[in-house]
Amino acid sequence: MPASDPSSAPAAVVLLSGGLDSATALAIAHERGFTCHALSVDYGQRHAAELAAARRVARSLGAREHRVMRVDLAGIGGSALTDPSIAVPEQPTAAIPVTYVPARNTVMLALALAWAEVLEARDLFIGVNVLDSSGYPDCRPEFIDAFAALAALATRAGVEGRPCRVHAPLIKWSKAQIIREGVRLGVDYAQTVSCYQADASGAACSRCDACRLRRAGFEAAGVPDPTRYRSGPR
Amino acid sequence: MPASDPSSAPAAVVLLSGGLDSATALAIAHERGFTCHALSVDYGQRHAAELAAARRVARSLGAREHRVMRVDLAGIGGSALTDPSIAVPEQPTAAIPVTYVPARNTVMLALALAWAEVLEARDLFIGVNVLDSSGYPDCRPEFIDAFAALAALATRAGVEGRPCRVHAPLIKWSKAQIIREGVRLGVDYAQTVSCYQADASGAACSRCDACRLRRAGFEAAGVPDPTRYRSGPR
Repeated sequence: MPASDPSSAPAAVVLLSGGLDSATALAIAHERGFTCHALSVDYGQRHAAELAAARRVARSLGAREHRVMRVDLAGIGGSALTDPSIAVPEQPTAAIPVTYVPARNTVMLALALAWAEVLEARDLFIGVNVLDSSGYPDCRPEFIDAFAALAALATRAGVEGRPCRVHAPLIKWSKAQIIREGVRLGVDYAQTVSCYQADASGAACSRCDACRLRRAGFEAAGVPDPTRYRSGPR
Repeated sequence: MPASDPSSAPAAVVLLSGGLDSATALAIAHERGFTCHALSVDYGQRHAAELAAARRVARSLGAREHRVMRVDLAGIGGSALTDPSIAVPEQPTAAIPVTYVPARNTVMLALALAWAEVLEARDLFIGVNVLDSSGYPDCRPEFIDAFAALAALATRAGVEGRPCRVHAPLIKWSKAQIIREGVRLGVDYAQTVSCYQADASGAACSRCDACRLRRAGFEAAGVPDPTRYRSGPR
């Protein structure tokens, strides 16, 4: 457990999308005593309100700094989240849905690894979750393990015997567990945006997969849902 | 071996820096029958002439298209190639030199993987080389193998049983072997820029590690060095 004295607290890079899961991951990293450097990636997502949410969350959860790195995944398309001509599904779909963004978590973890190496941080946090998720391949424990194995070989620090640890504390939790833990840690979920097609103000559609999983999580946790919906929950 | 009929040739994403090695990797991918989609990454490198070289090389070696993705690694610094306040060494250095860019090849391969998935390409090419290189951790065979293992888990295609193959054909060659193979394949090395501090026209310094390795490679290969040096070879 890292020391709690902020001056000697070890640094961690925390991927922060602005959604519910990554906000909780940030709160957990903070509670574990890390000085948190929050990283958001502007990859051309249609729900840009997510990035505004990330700024609010980083500030309120005590991140030391918040960096937004831009990388143009929208230029290559291939996902409903980056290509406006592909509709966001409003009914549950089988297998991997079109909201999957090709190699997104690989790209984000790679950027986090780069920043961690410059900061001399040994710890990365990512709020992926395999249970109450959309079935994305890059949210599974075996993906996280493979990235950790890669990171140990990829960097100067790894070669010198100080490989990064990749923490995915929520990976096997239910959405309700995530929410209960976040509430305990003081996360204000009203600041977060999960909706895949949130409007510019962050108001949610209530119909996409992300909205459905989020709402069901609050219900199961017995926690009032603070989400602002565009036309009221259905 | 893929078919040689261009209409049915399988697609490959080829990372193309504009330097000698990646130009050769592109020529090899082309000879193996792939339709080549060349990818360069503008990460804020000080030697922007590299990207102009990549454009020339992509065109002359028959790439189907050439994409430049921008990602701001210069914003995080930590390398002589992205931070103008860190000098490029002009003498050989021990261990991993300051020209190492944190997690650069991890970031580049992640972007290549994303594009490959959208293109439904199963093959990635990268011109890394462990023998006549600067000792970067992310140029080693074990790094490439770990990335291939990650890629198989990271993507929809991987989950569905069509994982990407990561080709690093030069990885165990000497620089002289690379040059001889490139000459056989018609690579015009005058188009390439290897120098870490090339000027805007692409003229090389003759003194950095990349220049030294390149010049020694031409000498060992017995091939005239077509590099334009700023003040003549030393």
